Amino acid sequence: MIKITLPDGSIKEFEKGTTPMEVAKSISEGLARNVISAKFNDETVEVSTPLNTDGNLVLFTWSNEEGKKAFWHSTSHVMAQAIQDLYPGAKLTIGPAIERGFYYDIDFGDQKISENDFKKIEERMLEIARGKHDFQMREVSKQEALDFYKNENNQFKVELIENLEDGDITFCDHDTFTDLCRGGHIPNTGIIKAVKLMSVAGAYWRGDEKNPQLTRVYGISFPKQKELKEYLELLEEAKKRDHRKLGKELELFTFSQKVGQGLPLWLPKGAALRERLENFLKKAQKKAGYEMVVSPHIGSKELYVTSGHYAKYGEDSFQPITTPNEGEEFMLKPMNCPHHCEMYNASSWSYRDLPKRFAEFGTVYRYEQSGELHGLTRVRGFTQDDAHIFCMPEQLDEEFKKVIDLTLYVFSSLGFEDFTAQVSLRDPENKEKYIGSDDVWEKAESAIINAAKEKGLNYVVETGEAAFYGPKLDFMVKDALGRSWQLGTIQVDYNLPERFDLTYKGSDNESHRPVMIHRAPFGSMERFIAILLEHTGGNFPLWLMPEQAIILSLSEKYEKYSQKVLTLLENNEIRALVDNRSETIGKKIREAEVNKFPYMLIVGEQEANDGTISVRKHSEGDLGTMKIEDFANLINSEINSTLKPFKTEV
Amino acid sequence: MIKITLPDGSIKEFEKGTTPMEVAKSISEGLARNVISAKFNDETVEVSTPLNTDGNLVLFTWSNEEGKKAFWHSTSHVMAQAIQDLYPGAKLTIGPAIERGFYYDIDFGDQKISENDFKKIEERMLEIARGKHDFQMREVSKQEALDFYKNENNQFKVELIENLEDGDITFCDHDTFTDLCRGGHIPNTGIIKAVKLMSVAGAYWRGDEKNPQLTRVYGISFPKQKELKEYLELLEEAKKRDHRKLGKELELFTFSQKVGQGLPLWLPKGAALRERLENFLKKAQKKAGYEMVVSPHIGSKELYVTSGHYAKYGEDSFQPITTPNEGEEFMLKPMNCPHHCEMYNASSWSYRDLPKRFAEFGTVYRYEQSGELHGLTRVRGFTQDDAHIFCMPEQLDEEFKKVIDLTLYVFSSLGFEDFTAQVSLRDPENKEKYIGSDDVWEKAESAIINAAKEKGLNYVVETGEAAFYGPKLDFMVKDALGRSWQLGTIQVDYNLPERFDLTYKGSDNESHRPVMIHRAPFGSMERFIAILLEHTGGNFPLWLMPEQAIILSLSEKYEKYSQKVLTLLENNEIRALVDNRSETIGKKIREAEVNKFPYMLIVGEQEANDGTISVRKHSEGDLGTMKIEDFANLINSEINSTLKPFKTEV
Repeated sequence: MIKITLPDGSIKEFEKGTTPMEVAKSISEGLARNVISAKFNDETVEVSTPLNTDGNLVLFTWSNEEGKKAFWHSTSHVMAQAIQDLYPGAKLTIGPAIERGFYYDIDFGDQKISENDFKKIEERMLEIARGKHDFQMREVSKQEALDFYKNENNQFKVELIENLEDGDITFCDHDTFTDLCRGGHIPNTGIIKAVKLMSVAGAYWRGDEKNPQLTRVYGISFPKQKELKEYLELLEEAKKRDHRKLGKELELFTFSQKVGQGLPLWLPKGAALRERLENFLKKAQKKAGYEMVVSPHIGSKELYVTSGHYAKYGEDSFQPITTPNEGEEFMLKPMNCPHHCEMYNASSWSYRDLPKRFAEFGTVYRYEQSGELHGLTRVRGFTQDDAHIFCMPEQLDEEFKKVIDLTLYVFSSLGFEDFTAQVSLRDPENKEKYIGSDDVWEKAESAIINAAKEKGLNYVVETGEAAFYGPKLDFMVKDALGRSWQLGTIQVDYNLPERFDLTYKGSDNESHRPVMIHRAPFGSMERFIAILLEHTGGNFPLWLMPEQAIILSLSEKYEKYSQKVLTLLENNEIRALVDNRSETIGKKIREAEVNKFPYMLIVGEQEANDGTISVRKHSEGDLGTMKIEDFANLINSEINSTLKPFKTEV
Repeated sequence: MIKITLPDGSIKEFEKGTTPMEVAKSISEGLARNVISAKFNDETVEVSTPLNTDGNLVLFTWSNEEGKKAFWHSTSHVMAQAIQDLYPGAKLTIGPAIERGFYYDIDFGDQKISENDFKKIEERMLEIARGKHDFQMREVSKQEALDFYKNENNQFKVELIENLEDGDITFCDHDTFTDLCRGGHIPNTGIIKAVKLMSVAGAYWRGDEKNPQLTRVYGISFPKQKELKEYLELLEEAKKRDHRKLGKELELFTFSQKVGQGLPLWLPKGAALRERLENFLKKAQKKAGYEMVVSPHIGSKELYVTSGHYAKYGEDSFQPITTPNEGEEFMLKPMNCPHHCEMYNASSWSYRDLPKRFAEFGTVYRYEQSGELHGLTRVRGFTQDDAHIFCMPEQLDEEFKKVIDLTLYVFSSLGFEDFTAQVSLRDPENKEKYIGSDDVWEKAESAIINAAKEKGLNYVVETGEAAFYGPKLDFMVKDALGRSWQLGTIQVDYNLPERFDLTYKGSDNESHRPVMIHRAPFGSMERFIAILLEHTGGNFPLWLMPEQAIILSLSEKYEKYSQKVLTLLENNEIRALVDNRSETIGKKIREAEVNKFPYMLIVGEQEANDGTISVRKHSEGDLGTMKIEDFANLINSEINSTLKPFKTEV
């Protein structure tokens, strides 16, 4: 008999050789129907793998990331079989699951494949799936494995096998198809109900451009046809909301090859949007006791040697800037903390002065390979909404909670309602990887966990995920399309205070070391605006919109009245534009809808006579005729309902 | 007879050999008493030099810069004589006039000189001065000159003479003293009534550190004892107002060797001051039709090759930043214009869209040798209040006037009342040095001159001082100590539109080239704040003060009432602090005076009972007891009297 421990901590006894599927059945028939993969003692196993020792077993269904991975990995086998059936001689290389779906890199030889071929491959895949073939792992000797692929004339798999140890090589069979594989499959092909090939691309064997070029075929699959449909709709919507597309349409930002890749240029409307976001956070930060500072975008190399950043990132980053003489070396600033530490050190502090909270919208530069760049989410220069809190260790608890309050305030003011948090602690088995004493770590970790609990966060704890200099809390925010983004991080740091020899005089008149908190609720202005664009599709919260209203005149006759309305709105601090073109009102309304103006204010004879406006709301329609002051009140109460003043409850 | 043309255009005839002094006498005895130097046909001459040809003569008195130069240059001869009398064997090298006074670089051999020796040198100088010795120039042959200094064993003068042409060498004699000299002296030593040696410093012969080290003795002199006294008082006041000293005292900014020399770190109060200045200008710029943009602090090397900056400054500047692979090269941005040109190019424009006015508080980096750095006035990184106006050539006139309006608005809001302007035109004799057609230059130059005239500026025209890409207008502002600072520049540019191929579609449907205006009313935030600090001694205009008032409680008993007053002030958008320390009210007032709080609000029993405050104004004293709303009104009307809303009159 063996003892199997389940995730809830319960321990059950089974006969040696029991499979995960049999364990599932012993729990419930429903679970057995849904279980599609498993982990035993932290290693991926098949649901049909006999278990021969005591151990921890986790069972996965489609709703787990691990279940999806097994599903997509298994589908890549099915796609490989279908392609080999349709393109005899096509040589397989590797075919992993990825974040959304899977791919297989294939050498098609002289044969060509394009999107036009997807349909027939998909049909063949579904045909195979319907055969309900079991996936079955078997061990093979290195010689057997080599013989198999030499026979198939597949030098790629031969190369892979040559790098493996004999006794550690497995094949996976289903139907008539065999693949070199480490395992991690669903029980059988029959679960795959919907498949879709997404795209083809070139890819070098082993990612090295000196190697032969292969064809990478991307696909995705689902256990239900409906889920595929929803996924494709989501993709369609995501494409419409792509921040690169919206950024161009809304004239927010641009890129220039001459200025350099990954270096956004913020056009007037985008710069104004950024400024509104910055002012919003500045206001809340002021209330929360932060002080703004300004530091340069370069620092001497020595600064980063002191901070440790040079040793860690120097070689892979933008290289040092030298001077014509004097032999000085500067670095583009990859983060603001060393500068803020030097500002802290510019004065001497007593315990009465702490916490000091230095905030800066600091633009930092980090080298990324050009292939990694993506719109505003992966750039080479970005502005962090950065702040560093220098506090006494005994203030950490309260400060941490205040930062959580501020972060949640930012999320709610911007319409992100769905988020989770991750608390990253050190690995207690590998304490030597971290700096700082046990005592200090324990206090900091419990401060974070207490804060997360007290603030009612939905959080998970990950041990071993802390930075070497301290534990942290990250927020994962779900956008309107259900995609998760990491936004907002709060990190405790014992390292920089040490390296920069930061001190304060305690009430005991002795010199003490403060603790630092790094935090950025937005993360960076660039990334945040990208996510906000995709989350809202450009329909920002009203307080943030570049223009909150557009005045549409029924004809040029009402130009003067339009201007009067504009002035009245501006006096009420409402941002508006006038559309006085001689177009039909229908066309003007349609264009204003496309351009996402929250309110359309139509003025004609009646309105000019009565001193009113006819109000339409974006995507909702007519709200009737009203006085301008009433409209101003309407807008202001809408704004006040999302944009409440910041309050901390600590 | 010769014809002498005077600056007013009048032409007078004199006998050949007439001296400038004789010309002065022919005009008036008063002028003759005051004339101390002269220029004939643009060359410096002695007032005793016989004039033998027709030509233009300008006579200078002490009130001209040129007069002062001759005065100080002559005094350096007197100092040299005094030093040689007191330090036999001291070898003279060079001794020019400088902006304020003069110096002489001297090899004292084994002898030492320090500030303790100044008095005896000054006394000997005044003794020589009282002798009323004429300065007299004479030509000498190269051989005579060499013999003279070989005889004196002065290898420095020998080296200087060896580099001169025979026939072009002159000595100047006065009393028993002779010096190698090109001329430019006052008539005689008797005019020198007050002398003061200022300091000694080391200096290398010919500025090369491989050469022997000399002693540089700095001095200044005046025609009246009173003027010396006033000058020394001014120096004393300037020292007190040194922005580096005030910046530290007021906790505005700091420098860190680790961050790097010449890279200011703005502490909270300084950052807030900057922000208030920026918001002030943003508001005015918004009204003036500018749009804010944001660009990165680096750009590809190619960007600056395109703009021409790389060819002009590349070698002497911060060197390019390379990347770990991909072989890309970036530069720290030395100016914002190339980025703004690329933003202009991101869209296509029609004549209806122009002018486009892109503004940015853009931080730029320019290499300066460490020895050249000085507080905030000479730095390696600074933030320009930059903007680029892209307009049609026919809009240049109006745009230029609008920029003048904005610049004058900035000066008057910040208490700079005394300024002049310089219009820099191209040199019509060297048109090939400039780009752009005659037609375009003539239009632009007359646009600037018209604008300066129409706006009633007190301006001078300097031909040959234009940039190669266009004419410009610079403002020189006098501070409270009478020192002139260049602040605010407006430049027309035909070059970058060409190099970046900027276009707009005209009403003729053809593609045209816009003109660019570069402008920065502050110049840079760093330099402007430095000058503002020295101009105001830290007593900024009320709207700009970090704290506008401090609440001084008579005892800790009134802490609660103090807090209430603070809240009421904050509700009225008045920035204030509370001083609740248990110190005497006398001490609190004295400290508040030193710390430059504009208003001190004293609260005690009486005030707490009546809901009032007792108001003291900085350096003026008691204003009596008043209600808080009345104080708020007082402050706001004081602010409104200096900070009027921007209006353009074009």
